[in-house]
Amino acid sequence: MVIAEKTLIQRIRRAAALGRNPAVRTGMGDDCSVLRFLAKNGKASDALVTTDFTLEGIHFRREWHSPESVGHRCLMRGLSDIAAMGGEPVAAFLSLALPRDLAQNWVGRFVRSLISLAHRYGVSLAGGDTAESPNGILADIIVVGTVPKDKAILRSGARPGDRIYISGALGGASAALLGMGTKAKRKWTPREHRRHFFPEPRIELGRILRERGLASAMIDTSDGLSTDLAHICEESGVGAALRAESIPRASLGRPSRPVDLKLALHGGEDYELLFTAPGGRRIPSRLAGIPITLIGHITRGSRILLFHRRGAGYRLEPRGWEHFQKD
Amino acid sequence: MVIAEKTLIQRIRRAAALGRNPAVRTGMGDDCSVLRFLAKNGKASDALVTTDFTLEGIHFRREWHSPESVGHRCLMRGLSDIAAMGGEPVAAFLSLALPRDLAQNWVGRFVRSLISLAHRYGVSLAGGDTAESPNGILADIIVVGTVPKDKAILRSGARPGDRIYISGALGGASAALLGMGTKAKRKWTPREHRRHFFPEPRIELGRILRERGLASAMIDTSDGLSTDLAHICEESGVGAALRAESIPRASLGRPSRPVDLKLALHGGEDYELLFTAPGGRRIPSRLAGIPITLIGHITRGSRILLFHRRGAGYRLEPRGWEHFQKD
Repeated sequence: MVIAEKTLIQRIRRAAALGRNPAVRTGMGDDCSVLRFLAKNGKASDALVTTDFTLEGIHFRREWHSPESVGHRCLMRGLSDIAAMGGEPVAAFLSLALPRDLAQNWVGRFVRSLISLAHRYGVSLAGGDTAESPNGILADIIVVGTVPKDKAILRSGARPGDRIYISGALGGASAALLGMGTKAKRKWTPREHRRHFFPEPRIELGRILRERGLASAMIDTSDGLSTDLAHICEESGVGAALRAESIPRASLGRPSRPVDLKLALHGGEDYELLFTAPGGRRIPSRLAGIPITLIGHITRGSRILLFHRRGAGYRLEPRGWEHFQKD
Repeated sequence: MVIAEKTLIQRIRRAAALGRNPAVRTGMGDDCSVLRFLAKNGKASDALVTTDFTLEGIHFRREWHSPESVGHRCLMRGLSDIAAMGGEPVAAFLSLALPRDLAQNWVGRFVRSLISLAHRYGVSLAGGDTAESPNGILADIIVVGTVPKDKAILRSGARPGDRIYISGALGGASAALLGMGTKAKRKWTPREHRRHFFPEPRIELGRILRERGLASAMIDTSDGLSTDLAHICEESGVGAALRAESIPRASLGRPSRPVDLKLALHGGEDYELLFTAPGGRRIPSRLAGIPITLIGHITRGSRILLFHRRGAGYRLEPRGWEHFQKD
């Protein structure tokens, strides 16, 4: 394992050396990586830090997800958190623990895919840790980004009267996952459902919302709309009212059909941006090429209510998407 | 698990809120944490980032290590990396995956111990991730620190003729681990071997070496002297010559006896600082209260040779300390 680990680190270093963000002064090969946040136009920057596990059996299954998909989604989770603050990613750090019997081939494909995504967003793979895993593949990704001083879009900025918006469409990732279960009538392939296997972080959209000062609060939908909206409400000390018919549902299959409302409400890993904006602020129906949909508004109190076209609202409980539980 | 996870995050947040480093603008409760590096005396700072796994069965065993020891050593590994750059720690991020059946009590003791160490060094626990673990306790600690612009002490600064120094004594941690094995004649207790169960990071020593411009290269001895010196030699493009009799060996037992030379050479997790300094620079025999010992010098070439009082030097291969392999 000692030799394999050294080879692994060297391979990652070689691949990582190809593209380097200028903020990274010293990357791999030391006890720490050294980052410098250069002030843009003489203005100071704040640093953003996020960490996310990618664990075999919890976040992916080797028989369902290719190494390329696992590597892409591993980094994607961190990039999406940076997008949800309106920030720009700078550097990533990968902690990777591998079982003894894992094929070298798997690791190479995983790392290449992760680094390919990193390069597209100008992110340096600047460090990390490797270890032997007692069981299964374990990865932890850390992404560091920047945002102009005091300009990060927090979860805590929503106020009663603000409108609630969502980018793209919801429920597609969880529908794809259900489709991979043993009881599924048909399997999805990466080509049929690219947004689940290779989601794109909404970096550009987040940046535009921050630069134009449009959003009062923001989060990415990694756990599912009901859970992620509850996070905004909790941190902002507010409630919310959603219109069921307005929630944009992903379409899958041929002929394509929208997913169940339940998946759009509770399914996770869609990595869309959920944000609020004061009522008077005009939000375009499309930003950075992505559709933006008005789905409700922020209320006083702490409850989240779901309204259908007819009838009273009922309380929407945050039902976290439990990975692979339905299988 | 969803409720348990929420409770866990809330508990960690409550505990973490007690002490906050002023550089941490927004800690837990958002997609990212926001850090600001304030310039000291108008001088810019570089940010340091390090990540380290702590995996059950690889880095610790529940039957050997108390939750307090695991929590302490988990953060300690990151703090020691910051010390090895001459930096000051600012914030820590904890990614923690726990098996379903783990007692709440274990987690509470682990987190309290980790946070207690963080507070003593002015470090905020500023974020992280939680997940369910498919097998065993998995932790990844990320520590962010600062160092004045371009002043980080790298592994790559050693030059032929530089002298090699080590803080404290070596081999104690691995001797303690061997003492816990099933074949061991006697078990060590935390009280008898505090430096293994509750090591202190050499932050103050690293800072003094950096401030006084004493060290040309530095690393912490987490993998063992032979491996960590090889890292310095590799990154600096140099070789080294060590004097076996000069290497300070930890003493254990009653009456206390120094550990075997092999453990001092190859045993890991002592978390001492190994550094080089130009020949003409006077290095005190004690710094920040810790003994500093001259153990050899840097040479041209790439080989590391070990000399005994009599006879020729023989080549010292880096033999990474393989955790628990001897059991």
